[in-house]
Amino acid sequence: MIGLEGKVLVAQGGGPTAVINQTLAGVTLEARKNPLTKAVYGALHGVRGIVEEEFLDLTRETTHHLEQVAATASSALLSTRDKPDAEYCARMFQVMRRHDIRYFFYIGGNDSADTVRIIDEQAKSTGYDLRAIHIPKTIDNDLAVNDHCPGFGSAARFVAQAFMGLNLDSRALSGVLIGTVMGRHSGFLTASSILAKKYADDGPHLVYLPERPFSQEAFLADVEHVYRQHGRCVIAVAEGIKDAQGTPILLQLSPNRERDAHGNRQLSGTGLLGDLLAETIRKGLKIRRVRADTFGYLQRCFAGVISDRDAQEARELGETAVHYAMRDHLDGSVVIRRPVMDYGVCYDLVRLDEVAGRTRTMPDEFINEEANGVTALFRSYCRPLVGTQLPEAHRLRAPRVPKIAVSA
Amino acid sequence: MIGLEGKVLVAQGGGPTAVINQTLAGVTLEARKNPLTKAVYGALHGVRGIVEEEFLDLTRETTHHLEQVAATASSALLSTRDKPDAEYCARMFQVMRRHDIRYFFYIGGNDSADTVRIIDEQAKSTGYDLRAIHIPKTIDNDLAVNDHCPGFGSAARFVAQAFMGLNLDSRALSGVLIGTVMGRHSGFLTASSILAKKYADDGPHLVYLPERPFSQEAFLADVEHVYRQHGRCVIAVAEGIKDAQGTPILLQLSPNRERDAHGNRQLSGTGLLGDLLAETIRKGLKIRRVRADTFGYLQRCFAGVISDRDAQEARELGETAVHYAMRDHLDGSVVIRRPVMDYGVCYDLVRLDEVAGRTRTMPDEFINEEANGVTALFRSYCRPLVGTQLPEAHRLRAPRVPKIAVSA
Repeated sequence: MIGLEGKVLVAQGGGPTAVINQTLAGVTLEARKNPLTKAVYGALHGVRGIVEEEFLDLTRETTHHLEQVAATASSALLSTRDKPDAEYCARMFQVMRRHDIRYFFYIGGNDSADTVRIIDEQAKSTGYDLRAIHIPKTIDNDLAVNDHCPGFGSAARFVAQAFMGLNLDSRALSGVLIGTVMGRHSGFLTASSILAKKYADDGPHLVYLPERPFSQEAFLADVEHVYRQHGRCVIAVAEGIKDAQGTPILLQLSPNRERDAHGNRQLSGTGLLGDLLAETIRKGLKIRRVRADTFGYLQRCFAGVISDRDAQEARELGETAVHYAMRDHLDGSVVIRRPVMDYGVCYDLVRLDEVAGRTRTMPDEFINEEANGVTALFRSYCRPLVGTQLPEAHRLRAPRVPKIAVSA
Repeated sequence: MIGLEGKVLVAQGGGPTAVINQTLAGVTLEARKNPLTKAVYGALHGVRGIVEEEFLDLTRETTHHLEQVAATASSALLSTRDKPDAEYCARMFQVMRRHDIRYFFYIGGNDSADTVRIIDEQAKSTGYDLRAIHIPKTIDNDLAVNDHCPGFGSAARFVAQAFMGLNLDSRALSGVLIGTVMGRHSGFLTASSILAKKYADDGPHLVYLPERPFSQEAFLADVEHVYRQHGRCVIAVAEGIKDAQGTPILLQLSPNRERDAHGNRQLSGTGLLGDLLAETIRKGLKIRRVRADTFGYLQRCFAGVISDRDAQEARELGETAVHYAMRDHLDGSVVIRRPVMDYGVCYDLVRLDEVAGRTRTMPDEFINEEANGVTALFRSYCRPLVGTQLPEAHRLRAPRVPKIAVSA
């Protein structure tokens, strides 16, 4: 046999997505076909399962069942928030050596890329032949180099469908509705709310992103303007919006927010930002019906809302990662590029340090000048990613009946 | 022509649902076929559109487009929260007479049934020949007589799919996740979360309903028990849970909650209850990762999450209402009965006062003895309502790999 024989190890790290198991299936199925593969192991709970030697033998998983798992949201191998340092990585590396792991695939965000980078270095410095590949996933869409990230399209689809509902709801009963979307630094997911817009007066009418300083004065003026024009207002806001000094708006609005046992203020995963913004509108504009919904964890692995394109690309990335490692004998991070705007992708392998620890935010050309919305270019960018068969709202077109009673 | 000739008026009231436009289409299409029908009008914004004589001529809506509107969530005729008194109804009745409205169909909850009841009385007392029919809709599933209500199945499907995601999320990263579901008095929608359970240790592990007094002590003991057993805990809680004295838990946990301009405490539509319960767990059980999501408006007309069965029944109810009014010359409220548990329905017409102003809650046999979950009977009741093709989660079944490194 020509090439590096040995076992393949795959793991999933960080927050789950709706399609992260597609990547797992892509790696597993492709690696199982390769004669260099002695076995495919899956580590439970990401890097923690490597240190603790908690492996499943994925060589024994039936193909049919693996396809069913692929279509299931969230990390089938379970996940972890552990961020390994060099010593942690050394322990992982030790376990890998002991099991004759020769191929390591880690599906995760930029922290995971960094973990792969450290392990890759340790292997090289000790002369152990190991192929290590990072495969991207994140609903935040904030990984460097990539045109977009697996997981984002499905989460964006959820956000778009949610805002379609909020828009229809606000049309029926008027008022102001705020939807708070995940995203501390990158506004991609919040911005995808605009795919809910079809008719000229559809919401979201205003979109606030972490990439632009948020001003309460401008916010109230924006809302008042929309409310006067349409008698209602739907607002998409990223949980991570900050003021011009970089202070999170949530802290600004709620300076006495309790600290937890670790001295950290609990910021995300609560409905507080939306509630505070709603209160700001109620007080500032005397509008009565103001409600806020915080999408929270629903948006990252809601069962059954999946972008078919996202799922296919997540699968292909896993497959492609195996090609780079087992056919080309390369290490690195696989990335998605988009040579055809509407729409075609290709995959590429870049150095791990091009992705590791970096965060990508919305480019300027995606955000409008008023900093309260997005551009048509963003819409073109985002629309293909949420997949086909996106629900569409339809309004009655029937003509008005002339009045005869009230005026008479 | 034998029978009552005249115009047909249809309107939608109260909170929107995912299938309320199916009923609108059912009424409109069936009424248009009937030679007694001079025209089909739709009132905008429910009863308000009747008083203000804001009508669309639905006789001019194309059939294809009406089908597209039927598949769109939320009230296509827009809605209102107005609760008409006798004088308001008299004004509506005056407008109806002026337009020669002879058939009135009002799609809504128990308040809407009461409105139809008053108008029906006014018509009878003045000798004006009018057929008035209430057609049910509500995501709360709390209308009397009905086995279940149109709109519930789709909202229940959303809740089930949401909890599938939360369950998978908590499996991947452990911790405690709370999902707060709509329902001030009736726990049906919260209870439907249990359709997310497939494997023995799946969440939601605990379900708290407004039908049973909520005790913080029992709650903490429940959570601790589940957390010890599974290392995680997923909780479904109704926004309207109350203590033994009937005080909403939200008020108990947050007694200083600000009152709004009308002296009412803002209770629903905020993430507060979930956040406060999360804090209770963090402090009481010293568990670090505790998060709460409040489903808010997402659950009532999220685009694209529709129970096919719910949609079909909503359509049939509209059609059936027209049969009762135009063929049988009857007034009343159409209801869904279920002669076949798993699964067949039939429709019936009952007196308006059997439905008007009444609220149905979960029967005792649907709630477990511990008051922290539901019974198998509830599952049998609810499963058919959320429709076919419900997503299903699949776990890896691969065997563990024997440890060789750590133990060595």
